[in-house]
Amino acid sequence: MTTSAHDFTPTRDDKFSFGLWTVGWQGVDVFGGAVRPPLDPAEAVHRLSDLGAWGITFHDDDVIPFGASTQERLDHLAPFRKALADTGLVVPMVTTNLFSHPVFRDGGFTNNDRDVRRFAISKVADNIDLAVELGATTFVAWGGREGAESGAAKDVRSALDRYKEAFDVLGAYVLEQGYDLKFALEPKPNEPRGDILLPTIGHALAFINELEHPELVGLNPEVGHEEMAGLNYAHGIAQALWHGKLFHLDLNGQHGPRFDQDLRFGAGNARGAFWTVDTVEQGGYDGPRHFDFKPPRTEDMDGVWASAAGCMRNYLILREKSRAFRVDPEVQAALKASRLDQLATPTLSPGEGLDALRAESFDPEEAAARGMAFEHLDQLALEHLYGIR
Amino acid sequence: MTTSAHDFTPTRDDKFSFGLWTVGWQGVDVFGGAVRPPLDPAEAVHRLSDLGAWGITFHDDDVIPFGASTQERLDHLAPFRKALADTGLVVPMVTTNLFSHPVFRDGGFTNNDRDVRRFAISKVADNIDLAVELGATTFVAWGGREGAESGAAKDVRSALDRYKEAFDVLGAYVLEQGYDLKFALEPKPNEPRGDILLPTIGHALAFINELEHPELVGLNPEVGHEEMAGLNYAHGIAQALWHGKLFHLDLNGQHGPRFDQDLRFGAGNARGAFWTVDTVEQGGYDGPRHFDFKPPRTEDMDGVWASAAGCMRNYLILREKSRAFRVDPEVQAALKASRLDQLATPTLSPGEGLDALRAESFDPEEAAARGMAFEHLDQLALEHLYGIR
Amino acid sequence: MTTSAHDFTPTRDDKFSFGLWTVGWQGVDVFGGAVRPPLDPAEAVHRLSDLGAWGITFHDDDVIPFGASTQERLDHLAPFRKALADTGLVVPMVTTNLFSHPVFRDGGFTNNDRDVRRFAISKVADNIDLAVELGATTFVAWGGREGAESGAAKDVRSALDRYKEAFDVLGAYVLEQGYDLKFALEPKPNEPRGDILLPTIGHALAFINELEHPELVGLNPEVGHEEMAGLNYAHGIAQALWHGKLFHLDLNGQHGPRFDQDLRFGAGNARGAFWTVDTVEQGGYDGPRHFDFKPPRTEDMDGVWASAAGCMRNYLILREKSRAFRVDPEVQAALKASRLDQLATPTLSPGEGLDALRAESFDPEEAAARGMAFEHLDQLALEHLYGIR
Amino acid sequence: MTTSAHDFTPTRDDKFSFGLWTVGWQGVDVFGGAVRPPLDPAEAVHRLSDLGAWGITFHDDDVIPFGASTQERLDHLAPFRKALADTGLVVPMVTTNLFSHPVFRDGGFTNNDRDVRRFAISKVADNIDLAVELGATTFVAWGGREGAESGAAKDVRSALDRYKEAFDVLGAYVLEQGYDLKFALEPKPNEPRGDILLPTIGHALAFINELEHPELVGLNPEVGHEEMAGLNYAHGIAQALWHGKLFHLDLNGQHGPRFDQDLRFGAGNARGAFWTVDTVEQGGYDGPRHFDFKPPRTEDMDGVWASAAGCMRNYLILREKSRAFRVDPEVQAALKASRLDQLATPTLSPGEGLDALRAESFDPEEAAARGMAFEHLDQLALEHLYGIR
Repeated sequence: MTTSAHDFTPTRDDKFSFGLWTVGWQGVDVFGGAVRPPLDPAEAVHRLSDLGAWGITFHDDDVIPFGASTQERLDHLAPFRKALADTGLVVPMVTTNLFSHPVFRDGGFTNNDRDVRRFAISKVADNIDLAVELGATTFVAWGGREGAESGAAKDVRSALDRYKEAFDVLGAYVLEQGYDLKFALEPKPNEPRGDILLPTIGHALAFINELEHPELVGLNPEVGHEEMAGLNYAHGIAQALWHGKLFHLDLNGQHGPRFDQDLRFGAGNARGAFWTVDTVEQGGYDGPRHFDFKPPRTEDMDGVWASAAGCMRNYLILREKSRAFRVDPEVQAALKASRLDQLATPTLSPGEGLDALRAESFDPEEAAARGMAFEHLDQLALEHLYGIR
Repeated sequence: MTTSAHDFTPTRDDKFSFGLWTVGWQGVDVFGGAVRPPLDPAEAVHRLSDLGAWGITFHDDDVIPFGASTQERLDHLAPFRKALADTGLVVPMVTTNLFSHPVFRDGGFTNNDRDVRRFAISKVADNIDLAVELGATTFVAWGGREGAESGAAKDVRSALDRYKEAFDVLGAYVLEQGYDLKFALEPKPNEPRGDILLPTIGHALAFINELEHPELVGLNPEVGHEEMAGLNYAHGIAQALWHGKLFHLDLNGQHGPRFDQDLRFGAGNARGAFWTVDTVEQGGYDGPRHFDFKPPRTEDMDGVWASAAGCMRNYLILREKSRAFRVDPEVQAALKASRLDQLATPTLSPGEGLDALRAESFDPEEAAARGMAFEHLDQLALEHLYGIR
Repeated sequence: MTTSAHDFTPTRDDKFSFGLWTVGWQGVDVFGGAVRPPLDPAEAVHRLSDLGAWGITFHDDDVIPFGASTQERLDHLAPFRKALADTGLVVPMVTTNLFSHPVFRDGGFTNNDRDVRRFAISKVADNIDLAVELGATTFVAWGGREGAESGAAKDVRSALDRYKEAFDVLGAYVLEQGYDLKFALEPKPNEPRGDILLPTIGHALAFINELEHPELVGLNPEVGHEEMAGLNYAHGIAQALWHGKLFHLDLNGQHGPRFDQDLRFGAGNARGAFWTVDTVEQGGYDGPRHFDFKPPRTEDMDGVWASAAGCMRNYLILREKSRAFRVDPEVQAALKASRLDQLATPTLSPGEGLDALRAESFDPEEAAARGMAFEHLDQLALEHLYGIR
Repeated sequence: MTTSAHDFTPTRDDKFSFGLWTVGWQGVDVFGGAVRPPLDPAEAVHRLSDLGAWGITFHDDDVIPFGASTQERLDHLAPFRKALADTGLVVPMVTTNLFSHPVFRDGGFTNNDRDVRRFAISKVADNIDLAVELGATTFVAWGGREGAESGAAKDVRSALDRYKEAFDVLGAYVLEQGYDLKFALEPKPNEPRGDILLPTIGHALAFINELEHPELVGLNPEVGHEEMAGLNYAHGIAQALWHGKLFHLDLNGQHGPRFDQDLRFGAGNARGAFWTVDTVEQGGYDGPRHFDFKPPRTEDMDGVWASAAGCMRNYLILREKSRAFRVDPEVQAALKASRLDQLATPTLSPGEGLDALRAESFDPEEAAARGMAFEHLDQLALEHLYGIR
């Protein structure tokens, strides 16, 4: 069976969402200025809707200038809201920018300056209100500037105390207000800081367990962020699912340990993308398929929309491949030949204890001779990716 | 003040321990065979004792041939025990080899083959008994072959279920026996498997929270393993300390993302080593300072002992530097100028709520103009490392 | 058009060759012993022939025990030669092992010990004679142990002098003997040494220019070795082709900066593999398509052969995709829209000088508004990889 | 001997130079805007002079707005020139910005757009005139945007043709004008492009050999750029020296494969910095010791100057350590024990041929038993770094 008969056109049911800052990125980087004009948020809503997206997300500062008054906030939001109403696009997630303004040069929640930390918590609280008002049920927290370039600059244990304090205060606020909103932490190992706190999925999962309301907090793992640490993203989100903590995700592309490339989903690690989609689709995740990418600086606005369309199209292509892979009888036989069924079976039988195991006779040499048949299984997967099965 | 007046000779009080497999490594790698003769365990004990070490650790298979009978075990252990008794060296930690024998080609606790998993648990249980008999209070678990090279070969969630099952069974056993023994998980991102489960400190910390007896299980983080993922080791162990989970540690050297170099401690990332010692010494960790390194294949046995001596000597040098750094009045002033004291202060005052924060007036532009003075602080640290302060 | 109608069965015309050490790898690594029995060289010839390979390559020590006498050499070679004759498999390339025996612990040509260097040159000279006798026209030189773990251990400029000396002596020998044989250097950044000399394609290309007979020496770049440095392999071999120095190549798979994974070709960086094949096929390279991989330690011999078959099959699949990509009219339009035709045109017209350029009027703002349309072009390429075009 | 008695105050004789863009960096990155005010070039000259620097370097656009007319250029240069005259600071090197303006979104010399390439060559020619007028003898060329994010976007061989064409044209111009000016190429593997052409020291060295006037072109290797590829910088510049091509260098700090950190020299890889200084000082390089770093975004202008001062101070500290290391009798004995003297001796004696080598008897087992004693040697080096010898 080939996948060529399908058209891979996204619909609202696919739950694709985009950060406003993705298609709106003007291309400013360390080595050069803007290459594209500012994108009007309302236009972004319309264009994404036309492409088949379901949702749009944003940082407060993407829509509302930093420091705007209440009236200015309303004025800036009006056309954005109208566009949402006109198109039916939803706002499933909102996030707060605690990293662009120079006041956050040393971070927000873990800034060494106490007054900046207080301001950061206030800014997030304001934005939580806005998020709820717009119907968002997930609040992403990327602590991009929470970290350090040098060893003495940040006492990590104090910083984690402050990080916990912020989420405890904000969690209590959400509960008090009766908001239907959960937090999703977004780990990243480095860039823009030399080393960022909670650098991987694992560190963030561990941190959540120390909070007063761990049930309110989960993860928003990003493909590229894990791959920047050389980690397997599909493995990472599988562990997050195992902990019941995959609240949201950021899909994009990356080529291993280097700067944060934010390529469109599908570009970058192509096999990794297949396993990502397979894990998302098989793993019971039913939240937004959210893209957090940056259309390369080489592109004009046509290229931006081509890139956004590519993200969704590639997801749909890979989703079909994943489905075909899972129902392929030869794959199913190969999974059995590789004893995946045994892995799904508890090691001890019901009621069995360690004594039984220790009493058991076992011939390690015989077992050592068995091959796992993983290469055949993986070749089948690759051929599904290639579209030749 | 310079550090040159000191002699940096280790004593038992420094609690330095070595894996028997470190000085005993014969140099077999993927590209070549043994370059050094087998090292008799009893000789290792004597030589390490002479160098000033306090403890020695081992995998079962380092001392006892795989599959040995009970009598063979006793025979193999006798000279080792005698050497311990003669020297006074202790065995603070023991670990089980679930990765060298071909039966573990797909891992131990998470092997797809159920019978191999059962054997692995048995093997560990046997070794736990031995560990306790030898007086060890820490049992390290490095799951070096728990992982995969390809996407379908390992269902990560099932594998984590099996991983948890093994520690639940073994934890219950330790409790039943009334053993004074804790487990320390050793994370590693890859090598020898393409991707290893529980790849970082964070992932292992998160995993522990799902166990039936999380209080029995902590971490044994290794410098090189975290640095292979580009992560900051000092930050990692600081987070482990924050969770109360730094049960043991593996000190060595590495040059970033590449193969596992296992250089002697101090070689590799020199500044990282300084912050590692500073974090260990300042952070209240009082367990063994354990070295898990491989004397390079270029060395003969003289080089092996030189390398082992270097590990301890470098730790002592860095410990003195850390102490000098922390009491240096200029450093203390610089820490204050960088507002580390503010970071140690809760963001909210006692009894204060979010309302107070939100009502507060704050001028972000004024705050944004403040520099953090981290470069001056870091230069002071570097000059302590250089020994010119 | 889909690729599913084809059967991707290799033939001799495809010029696929394998290192004897690839299918013969027994699985010894730093953390474990052999998992597979020794593979008889003659059997390897027959099995590879059956799978459709065209050639087989080897290190001297793969076929002949280290230090064998002349008679022993002949004895060991006899069945191998018979298998070649029986199957028609050729030996297009031979290489010398200067890295496994402990005498090469510090390398061969750049070993600090002069007598070891002399021995290394001799060993290679002997093997050159054998290579020519077997009809090989390429002699690969991988200096896997030429390097260092620490700064003072190797004076790099002296080492490069010695490296040059070796190739000058051996080049003169090849010329004197009138052998039809060229050398192909194989760069690698690290592993098993901390840092290896001539770490990338570029460093080796530069080195060749200093030799007495640069025309005799080119490159044998390996996919994984470049990707271990985070470099783009297709870019690397394109530069080697540009210099006229792509004499041979080693195809396999890798996941970025980490240990040398030696995955089967196609596994690892799937998009990179597409561009690799595209560059090889478009770039005029007509030498062997040589696989240098290691069947994972999880596999038994069935898995080994499945893995070898996968290497060839994946190459053929990607070759067909590359051809389809290049003739796709939409791709051709996209290449033009991205101005690849302009890149192929000299910047100055014939006879034109710098003065003309400087006199020319140019509006940078107008030019700055042009997008490059690379995202659309790349999406087309990705859809060819996916097999949906 | 300790190093503490010295004051490490830079003088003009130390030949320290800084890029104007280093201390002048305002902190704009992908995730945030300027944190520091613009720095007046004349003030930069005065401050650097006060700190003990000898030279200042710049991109055209650092001093003169992009697109300025001749009169505007003169106006902008006047105060800068006056500051140079007042302080005695020299301009040993100048470089051209072909990466910040959006017209260079796809690079300069290898941009797919021919008119942009023509403009780029013109811009450089104009800037060469300026460089010579200011007394510079080195012209650095960093092709930061010469590269690609995706496979079809750049035909690498065509791009190298265009790259060569640009240097051939500009080389001819320099010769025609009789300018005393040489080019220094600055390699970088990635960032801001996904993959940059001429990604390492090696690739650039190889490229130079294809130019019409290779004698005019050498390298300007940057510490961080090589370390981003996991390469050993000291090894890299040693090879550049071996080819006679180390024309200039960029000193800074980095932590392995990740984003370009541009830390102050000494921060980052501390042991690497020691070997860098040792190689520079021992290797006969007598050009500028040029710093290309970015004071972290956490710093205000006081922090900027502290960071700049730290670069020079760290160089001087390490220079003294290198000198002490080289004259230490124990080090000299250790170098001999590790047979560095033998490495410096040709492998063949004068007049000796391959026959003599092949006739020679050699016992590999005896030689294999010799250790290289590198660990002892490296420990001595480390103790010099620590300042305890």
